[in-house]
Amino acid sequence: MTTPGTTPGKREDSAPAKVHRGMRPAGELPGPGGRSVTSRVLSVLDAFSGERRRMSLSDISRRTAMPLTTAYRLVSELVAWGALERDRDGRYQIGLRLWEVAALAPRGPGLREAAMPFLEDLYEATHQHVQLAVLDGADVVVLERISGRGSVGVRGRVGGRLPAHATGVGLVLLAYAPPEAQERYLAGPLVALTERTVADPGRLRAVLAGVRRDGYAISDRQVQLDAVSVAAPVRDAAEGVVAALSVVVRAGDPQPGVLVPPVVAAARGVSRRLSSRA
Amino acid sequence: MTTPGTTPGKREDSAPAKVHRGMRPAGELPGPGGRSVTSRVLSVLDAFSGERRRMSLSDISRRTAMPLTTAYRLVSELVAWGALERDRDGRYQIGLRLWEVAALAPRGPGLREAAMPFLEDLYEATHQHVQLAVLDGADVVVLERISGRGSVGVRGRVGGRLPAHATGVGLVLLAYAPPEAQERYLAGPLVALTERTVADPGRLRAVLAGVRRDGYAISDRQVQLDAVSVAAPVRDAAEGVVAALSVVVRAGDPQPGVLVPPVVAAARGVSRRLSSRA
Repeated sequence: MTTPGTTPGKREDSAPAKVHRGMRPAGELPGPGGRSVTSRVLSVLDAFSGERRRMSLSDISRRTAMPLTTAYRLVSELVAWGALERDRDGRYQIGLRLWEVAALAPRGPGLREAAMPFLEDLYEATHQHVQLAVLDGADVVVLERISGRGSVGVRGRVGGRLPAHATGVGLVLLAYAPPEAQERYLAGPLVALTERTVADPGRLRAVLAGVRRDGYAISDRQVQLDAVSVAAPVRDAAEGVVAALSVVVRAGDPQPGVLVPPVVAAARGVSRRLSSRA
Repeated sequence: MTTPGTTPGKREDSAPAKVHRGMRPAGELPGPGGRSVTSRVLSVLDAFSGERRRMSLSDISRRTAMPLTTAYRLVSELVAWGALERDRDGRYQIGLRLWEVAALAPRGPGLREAAMPFLEDLYEATHQHVQLAVLDGADVVVLERISGRGSVGVRGRVGGRLPAHATGVGLVLLAYAPPEAQERYLAGPLVALTERTVADPGRLRAVLAGVRRDGYAISDRQVQLDAVSVAAPVRDAAEGVVAALSVVVRAGDPQPGVLVPPVVAAARGVSRRLSSRA
């Protein structure tokens, strides 16, 4: 497993051309702007987002700053392989084949697979939102969510990112992150999603110490004013915290204290399973 | 949505270098063997599978038929972006960032998101395995599975492939596929997973006509001798069948007939949701 905080976060991902400049695979000449073909392929994937799931060729060309002809050749190769697909209107979307390869990621679907039976039990016991998340750079990435039908509406989607210090799962993951990653995070900037988000480095440091002492975190209206989450750490065979799971409920119903034992028990269940697989 | 049967299936994917030969993005020279850089990037991703989730650099070099130095440069760019990650032992694995981009695929996670509440209800009603799948080339790809704790062990994993004519979801997807895709499939080869798999084109054609007449499919011990599945079609706003959902139970318990109404109702629920989103 990769240590939390050491993988490239979203902040760096947004400018791959800059990061990769000068690294050219054998047999490759720099295109216009000195970008390698690999970085251009990746910039096509980067152009897609939750708000832009389908794009025309000219959208892709504009967002990647590539000439139409270059974009067309790259996109055609990606379509032939299945990384992109065309919809009925001829627009491009992320393809099923890319999802199949990505389903092999140990930190994403691998963890999810091990956790799923425990998430299902927790959902049946509470009928509230149940989440599994990991830390990637400065963000929490939601790996899975089983949603309670009548429960509170929650931010984010599976595969989406949230700032770590606001969420229950994020507070757990930060609390157990290596000290240097924690300090880097505390150096900010720390956004306040609501008036209750702890965005002061000193107070946040105290909150994280409390999480390590208690073995769980409560985010009380710190992501949105109508929601509370209770989160606990998931450990791998080497006892490192690799993920966190949580239950998210409407503020005040039920009281978060009631949720601590089932959440901690489920997280320990997943940890036990990860240890036995290793 | 892409029409089932028209996207490149696994059979073609395994030889991307051959398919793409001669298509070179601007500014790129062919490397040794005449392969474009894009096809080499994709061949690195192709090298990973359910049996090979972690590989050393020399494994990757061998499986992609690239010299070590070329493989190293490509892999380094993929790690910097987050498409690959290194584990504690220095081996490479599919990275979280690739999974995040892939989570934007409308045919995979997009469908899954729309279907999830209905899959959860079906799971709570039956406490058996509940599956969502799509057709890709000649295979069924499992998009989601909620697993019953005490239920029968089932083949395949989320993101994995199964031959379409053996599974309940596959029989539904084949039954509603365009006639030309159906005939291409019937032309074979048709493997028999068990002695009950319908692997004769004439008999299979009759089974598919029955599925269209009834509006659901039953795969009775045709994937494994201890399991039965009941599947129904999911339609999009244009009334095309885009996915299938199923319940998988131990053979003989409960009787499949009992499962038809809840499975059909859940599939219609997902279809209604897809129509209202369009």
